[in-house]
Amino acid sequence: MVVANTDQRPEAYKEMKDKYRPSHADYTYDAKYGVRAWPGGGRTSARETIGRVAAGAVAKKILKEQFGVTVLCCVQQVQKIIAEINPDHFTLKQVESNIMRCPDKKASEKMIRHVDRVRKAGDSVGGVLLGVARGVPVGWGEPVFDRLEADLAKAMVSLPASKGFEIGSGFGGVALKGSEHNDAFRMRRGKVRTTTNRSGGVQGGISNGETIYFRVAFKPTATILQSQDTVSRLGKNVKLKARGRHDPCVLPRAVPMVEAMTALVLVDHALRHRGQCG
Amino acid sequence: MVVANTDQRPEAYKEMKDKYRPSHADYTYDAKYGVRAWPGGGRTSARETIGRVAAGAVAKKILKEQFGVTVLCCVQQVQKIIAEINPDHFTLKQVESNIMRCPDKKASEKMIRHVDRVRKAGDSVGGVLLGVARGVPVGWGEPVFDRLEADLAKAMVSLPASKGFEIGSGFGGVALKGSEHNDAFRMRRGKVRTTTNRSGGVQGGISNGETIYFRVAFKPTATILQSQDTVSRLGKNVKLKARGRHDPCVLPRAVPMVEAMTALVLVDHALRHRGQCG
Amino acid sequence: MVVANTDQRPEAYKEMKDKYRPSHADYTYDAKYGVRAWPGGGRTSARETIGRVAAGAVAKKILKEQFGVTVLCCVQQVQKIIAEINPDHFTLKQVESNIMRCPDKKASEKMIRHVDRVRKAGDSVGGVLLGVARGVPVGWGEPVFDRLEADLAKAMVSLPASKGFEIGSGFGGVALKGSEHNDAFRMRRGKVRTTTNRSGGVQGGISNGETIYFRVAFKPTATILQSQDTVSRLGKNVKLKARGRHDPCVLPRAVPMVEAMTALVLVDHALRHRGQCG
Amino acid sequence: MVVANTDQRPEAYKEMKDKYRPSHADYTYDAKYGVRAWPGGGRTSARETIGRVAAGAVAKKILKEQFGVTVLCCVQQVQKIIAEINPDHFTLKQVESNIMRCPDKKASEKMIRHVDRVRKAGDSVGGVLLGVARGVPVGWGEPVFDRLEADLAKAMVSLPASKGFEIGSGFGGVALKGSEHNDAFRMRRGKVRTTTNRSGGVQGGISNGETIYFRVAFKPTATILQSQDTVSRLGKNVKLKARGRHDPCVLPRAVPMVEAMTALVLVDHALRHRGQCG
Repeated sequence: MVVANTDQRPEAYKEMKDKYRPSHADYTYDAKYGVRAWPGGGRTSARETIGRVAAGAVAKKILKEQFGVTVLCCVQQVQKIIAEINPDHFTLKQVESNIMRCPDKKASEKMIRHVDRVRKAGDSVGGVLLGVARGVPVGWGEPVFDRLEADLAKAMVSLPASKGFEIGSGFGGVALKGSEHNDAFRMRRGKVRTTTNRSGGVQGGISNGETIYFRVAFKPTATILQSQDTVSRLGKNVKLKARGRHDPCVLPRAVPMVEAMTALVLVDHALRHRGQCG
Repeated sequence: MVVANTDQRPEAYKEMKDKYRPSHADYTYDAKYGVRAWPGGGRTSARETIGRVAAGAVAKKILKEQFGVTVLCCVQQVQKIIAEINPDHFTLKQVESNIMRCPDKKASEKMIRHVDRVRKAGDSVGGVLLGVARGVPVGWGEPVFDRLEADLAKAMVSLPASKGFEIGSGFGGVALKGSEHNDAFRMRRGKVRTTTNRSGGVQGGISNGETIYFRVAFKPTATILQSQDTVSRLGKNVKLKARGRHDPCVLPRAVPMVEAMTALVLVDHALRHRGQCG
Repeated sequence: MVVANTDQRPEAYKEMKDKYRPSHADYTYDAKYGVRAWPGGGRTSARETIGRVAAGAVAKKILKEQFGVTVLCCVQQVQKIIAEINPDHFTLKQVESNIMRCPDKKASEKMIRHVDRVRKAGDSVGGVLLGVARGVPVGWGEPVFDRLEADLAKAMVSLPASKGFEIGSGFGGVALKGSEHNDAFRMRRGKVRTTTNRSGGVQGGISNGETIYFRVAFKPTATILQSQDTVSRLGKNVKLKARGRHDPCVLPRAVPMVEAMTALVLVDHALRHRGQCG
Repeated sequence: MVVANTDQRPEAYKEMKDKYRPSHADYTYDAKYGVRAWPGGGRTSARETIGRVAAGAVAKKILKEQFGVTVLCCVQQVQKIIAEINPDHFTLKQVESNIMRCPDKKASEKMIRHVDRVRKAGDSVGGVLLGVARGVPVGWGEPVFDRLEADLAKAMVSLPASKGFEIGSGFGGVALKGSEHNDAFRMRRGKVRTTTNRSGGVQGGISNGETIYFRVAFKPTATILQSQDTVSRLGKNVKLKARGRHDPCVLPRAVPMVEAMTALVLVDHALRHRGQCG
């Protein structure tokens, strides 16, 4: 890994000192707080997620050791390239086998090549992450406000650059009729199970024992190296052309964030469930 | 309005007394709490949202009178029928002009006919709601955990039958490159504005002064009048055929819920913003 | 019980319509919210505690049935009359044996006579309540912010007319040296117990298995039937002489409030403890 | 200041390794969490308050600069030695003029001599702190659960070694009749003021514009250098004689803690008030 020349790096940010990056957080942050920390993205940088990931590591350990629950996440889509991934079966090893963190080898290679092209053009792309939690027992969650899926939704949409959340069949599920969409119950090895899992492991805010899976949409990185229309702090219409090193695709870096937030939501509900029903 | 015969109505629910409805909340609720209130859907009924709607009415009034903010919601999609709606321009009058609560007249007629056919077949459909908040000033929200879009996500996904939330360009936005997706800033009448609104009125967790708009996915109603595979409370594989009157499509009824939750989230952030920066 | 003549009662409050009662909540409430609901004390009336008492009844039942914990409260002091009460031994029957809710018969008779004299003089008195929780196991509470005694303090001082809270030896304990004040540990029937209980059942924020006991100070009722200096809503110096029926001593009525708030704090910590350590 | 020999200091704690200090937090902490960090008092050490004091420094600055509010605290009583202090008039300079942090010179000298004697005897003493907030405007606080005095009570009783809280006339006020206790309202320079301040600056949960003052009881330090009965981790009755350097009186060190917690409670309510009524 190459460490950036610390003298030069802020130089690269100077172009952004007095100009707001389009679709970035720096305008709204300045407007609200009157604070503008432009080098490195400042206070609005995704660097803040380091605390979430650290706490998530503890949460994942508790989930694994005390409840037998595994949390995992991977890249499922980069711009229009979509990987084939079964929420029940992909592994950490597969995820970490390539820098895209996509367990579908063929797709991951396409994605990597695509991001490379985009990077060279000074542009950026977004995509979709798939998060899963396996082994969650029946009963975690709440029936009204703090539904398990509602807390997951907030956790995911609180991540930088995320624009959407869907659990189970999600937005795609609305194309089906109830008779096609419902997950039939059947007894299997003495347990109530479902024969399909369009519910995504949660029914009415409470886990039903099936694998929990959900998708999170991340927009293309706001900071690009092309010339864009914007305004300055002084209220002038200007052009901005960012320099420096910027991620053309944040997806692989968002994987540990999604895992961390998932683990934090689940461990909270594990304790609440034990408190109420233990 | 016809008042249901109270003697007969529970009768219609009896079939469901000992059988869990597929994809309904009644299995997980029973598993967690050991409580089964089958008539009327019991504790897991969407009737609980009445309190949200009542509180939302107060919140909408505060938003309108003190901050000039309007909250509105409508049906945008029913199964595969998609209406054309501009988040900036549809009106309450248009929404309330038909029982589907869809301001696109042509689409609403198709939707109504479709739901009617589905109802006759004893089946159900889902769809997508569009929620908007117009006139929100720059600065509402928080940069990290309690992002405005994160709180909206939780509020929406806490509603019965909702399976997804997306703000601005949402899941569709991932198909674009950064250079296509970014909202350019331009000065207009002395204000910082954006020329497009793929951000959906929020950047980095904080409102940017543009119209806030988002979409919420609702799955097809779980309770249908066709025979389905399920299990009984005693752990037997059985068939269930629900009777009684059940909504074949909850979308129009969810419109006031989405408005209420939007208003509650916004009024909270209005007070927080005034407390911190007022 | 005589039901007040509803036509006449508001009449009795009219004198207070435009004049703030000294040491009552009605001035600060009006100053903050611009709302003045003078009949019956309005929004600032202790009638609001009915919700706390109702919830407390459920909490007491859970504590008793699931954890074997008993919550009890009584009047220990009225103005300068102090009863002799052992936190470990007084009973509900003794408390409810007289209208003063003081289990020390001799003291209660003195208190009742005293309150009667005070009432005839159009004056009022305050006093001290003793709250206890017996059977709380070792380990409920938190070591830092949400200490068990801190949550009890907030709960008690949130009650109308309360001006102080002390647990165990409280303010009196500061007259002792450490060597006199410390509760020695000794093994008793295989359990770690203390030979004295100046800690009041809590050490470092966490219950130690001994009886929890605390005292709550209630000031004399603000509304009295004597002429007092005050100001009007219009900012004039005036005289106020309240009429109508007002409690000359709120202590016996505060007993169920203290029990309710104690039970609510304890049941919260019971669930938290089971969640964390169960 | 002499820096402790770090090699020797843990040695001094060894006696406490397997023996619980009477009236200290280490037994309950171990019982709840199964963790025993004996050197330096471990997790239950008052060292945790450093974070509160740091945050309080920011809160004090906001209160001073944005609202003109001053927060101050001093030692009012050490065991039986009671200082004469007027909540409206003592100054930071007076407080910091002596190591006891007591603005009454005569009393502070007595206190210092007394603590010295107690220290030599291997014993400890407690006392009472007086906290004040001057310049708080009318209207901060809430009428029901989050009363200003309730939040102050929780904040103070959450401090290590504190056993009680009283605001205004507190426990002493119960000796008075309503006619003696009520604070008459009078107009002064166009403002509603009280001629006395037994309310302690708060009425019905909301500040009334007078100086807020309250007292906090701190028990004698639990760790003393005399032989005491206690039990070991293995459940044996034993004798414990602590060694090392231990505060014979924590009062002066608790002054900044009380100031910090007061400032944090007030700045929270300042923001809430501005949010609701600003």
